[in-house]
Amino acid sequence: MFENTNNSKTKLSELGEFGLIDHLTQHFKIKHTTSTLKSIGDDAAVLKHENEIVVTTDLLVEGVHFDLAYMPLKHLGYKAVMVNLSDVYAMNAQAKQITVSIACSNRFTVEALEELYAGISAACEVYNVDVVGGDTTSSVKGMQISITAIGEASKENITYRNGAKPNDLLVVSGDLGGAFLGLKILEREKEVFKVNPNAQPDLSEYTYLVQRQLKPEARKDIVELLAALDVKPTAMIDISDGLSSEMMHLCKNSKVGANLFEDKLPLDPKVISTCEEFKLDSTTVVLNGGEDYELLFTIDQNDFDKIKANPHLSVIGHMCDASDGIHLISQMNTKIPMKARGWSAIEDEE
Amino acid sequence: MFENTNNSKTKLSELGEFGLIDHLTQHFKIKHTTSTLKSIGDDAAVLKHENEIVVTTDLLVEGVHFDLAYMPLKHLGYKAVMVNLSDVYAMNAQAKQITVSIACSNRFTVEALEELYAGISAACEVYNVDVVGGDTTSSVKGMQISITAIGEASKENITYRNGAKPNDLLVVSGDLGGAFLGLKILEREKEVFKVNPNAQPDLSEYTYLVQRQLKPEARKDIVELLAALDVKPTAMIDISDGLSSEMMHLCKNSKVGANLFEDKLPLDPKVISTCEEFKLDSTTVVLNGGEDYELLFTIDQNDFDKIKANPHLSVIGHMCDASDGIHLISQMNTKIPMKARGWSAIEDEE
Repeated sequence: MFENTNNSKTKLSELGEFGLIDHLTQHFKIKHTTSTLKSIGDDAAVLKHENEIVVTTDLLVEGVHFDLAYMPLKHLGYKAVMVNLSDVYAMNAQAKQITVSIACSNRFTVEALEELYAGISAACEVYNVDVVGGDTTSSVKGMQISITAIGEASKENITYRNGAKPNDLLVVSGDLGGAFLGLKILEREKEVFKVNPNAQPDLSEYTYLVQRQLKPEARKDIVELLAALDVKPTAMIDISDGLSSEMMHLCKNSKVGANLFEDKLPLDPKVISTCEEFKLDSTTVVLNGGEDYELLFTIDQNDFDKIKANPHLSVIGHMCDASDGIHLISQMNTKIPMKARGWSAIEDEE
Repeated sequence: MFENTNNSKTKLSELGEFGLIDHLTQHFKIKHTTSTLKSIGDDAAVLKHENEIVVTTDLLVEGVHFDLAYMPLKHLGYKAVMVNLSDVYAMNAQAKQITVSIACSNRFTVEALEELYAGISAACEVYNVDVVGGDTTSSVKGMQISITAIGEASKENITYRNGAKPNDLLVVSGDLGGAFLGLKILEREKEVFKVNPNAQPDLSEYTYLVQRQLKPEARKDIVELLAALDVKPTAMIDISDGLSSEMMHLCKNSKVGANLFEDKLPLDPKVISTCEEFKLDSTTVVLNGGEDYELLFTIDQNDFDKIKANPHLSVIGHMCDASDGIHLISQMNTKIPMKARGWSAIEDEE
C-alpha cells in the first residue's frame, strides 16, 4: 500500500560496514557541544554530563514490533527514536544522545537504510538529540533496530515510578486509544490490499489515528510544561502498553491503590467514532490499546490549581491505600476492579 | 557437539515479559552504589558519573556473529559482554554499567535464557560491571543480543584513535590469531559431528585456541597496567576485526603511516603449530583473523623503558609520516604495502 517508489537499488555490500555508517551519518551535526565530546568514529562515544543521567534501551524486531507492509521506513526510524525518548521523558529528564544499531538482511538496499536514517535524523532534529554511536550489521532474516537513549536531569527532578502517595491525583497527557485504532485501520487496509493490490486506500478520514500509530510524538513538551508550571510529579511512567498496565506498574511500585474515573478518560472525537465503526468499547481500547506514548503521572493535590486549566493534561483519578485496591469507577458509578492484565469486565460484587 | 543436557523446558510465554526480566536479573547485585542510582525496574536507569563517560553498543545476531551449534549459551552471554567492554577499555576507560536487550524466538526456553544470563552475570562479576537495564522480546527467527556499555575515565586519560604521531611506538597486548584458529577448530568439529553425531570431540589439545574463541577476555588489566606504569597511550583501538584493519583505522584517524615488523608479532606456540596443521600462513592469520579483543596502541618513544620488559605487551612497529604509507617489514626484510582490506601478498616494487 505504501510502496517504495525509489527504484535505485544499491546493495549494502557495495559500501561495507564502515563505509555504510559513515555514509548514513555524514550529515548528522552535533547539537550538544558541551556534553557530546566525541560522536561516531571511535571505539566509543565520549560524553560529559554535569547532572544525573538516565539510560534506556529498546530492541524493535520486524514482524513483532513493526510491519513494513504499512510502516514506511522513514516513519519507522522516527518511531524507533520516539519509543526510547518517551522512556527518558517518563523520568522527567531531557533526552540528549542516542546510539542506533541496525541489523538487516540483504533484501534491504542502501537507499532503504537512507530512508530509515532520514526518519532517525528528523526525530533527532525535532527533539534536539545527538546520534553518538552506531552499528550496522547483517541479519539472517528481517530488520532489528536497537536504540539506547541517554537523558539528563537534576537529582531532585528525576521522577520514579515509586513515589505516588494516597490522595495524589492521577494525571495523563494528551488523549488515549488513537494509536491502537490507527493500527486497526492499517491492518484493515492491508487486508483490502491483499485482495485487490490496485485499490487506492483513502485514509484521509483517519489521518489523526494513522499518525498516532505511524508517527507518534514523545512528550518532551510535557516535561518542559511541568517545569514551567513548577510541578514535580510524585511518580511517572510512559504509556506504551496501555493505561491499565501502566497504572498497575505505578500502583505496584508505589505500593498504593487507585481509582480511575471512566468519564474522565481523554478521548479524541475520532477515537469515539472509530470505536463505534469497529464496534469496540472505547474504554477497553483506552485501557488496553497501547503505543500512545503519553505520560501518566501523579501529583500532590496541592498542585492541582497549577494544572487544572491545561488543555494538554487530564486528571483521571486519584491514588488511595493499597488495601483499597485498583478500581475503575464506571460512568454508571459502579466500582470495577482492575486486573493485572487489563480490565476485568466483571463488576465488583461489593 | 556441545549438547544442552538440561532437559527442563519452560516456555518463555509462561513468565511473560515483565516476569522474565525480573526472573533473569533477580540475583544481580549493584556494585557501583555511588554511580548506579537506579537499576532495572523503572522507565530508565539513573546513573551519576563525576568524570567523562564513554558509551558503546553492539548488536550480535545468531547465524552472523555466533553459531549455537558450538557456542554454549553461557559462553555467548560472557562473550557478548566482552565484545562491548573491549571497546570501553580501548578508550582507556573503566567499564561501569551495561544494558542488555535480547530478542529470541520461541525455540528458546526460560532455562536457555537463564544459561545466557549466567554468562552475562559471570562477566559482570569478573569485570565489576552493573547490569542496569534490559529488554527481552520475541523475534521471528533466532536470537539477537544488543548490549550497550558505559565506562568512566577522566578527560585527560581518555584515549582516542587519532592521537598517534610519527615515531610513536606501536604496541599490542597479549598474542594474536588464537580466536580465528579456535573458530577453525570448532568449524572442523562441527563438520565431523554432521557426519557422525556420536563422535566425541577431543579438543583438549586446542584448549587455548578454543577458549580464545568461545571465552575471550577483554583487557581491563591492560588499562590498569598502563595507569600503574604511568603510560598514557597516544592512540588506542581494540582488535576485533584483525590487526591489519585496526592498524588502518589508527593510521587513518591519526593521519600517519606505520611500519609493522613481522618478526615482532606475538604468536602463541599453539598458534604456530595449528597454522602448520591447517597449512595457513601465521602472519596472514594474525593480520586478518579477528576477534582477539586485544588492545592495539601507540606510545611516545620516551615511554619505551616503562613497558619494555612487560610480558603482556609487545612493541610490533612504529608510526611514520602518512606519506611513507603503511608497510609490513617481512622477516626477509622486504617492505610490503598493507592494503585497506588486509594484507597484500604482492611485494613492494621499490
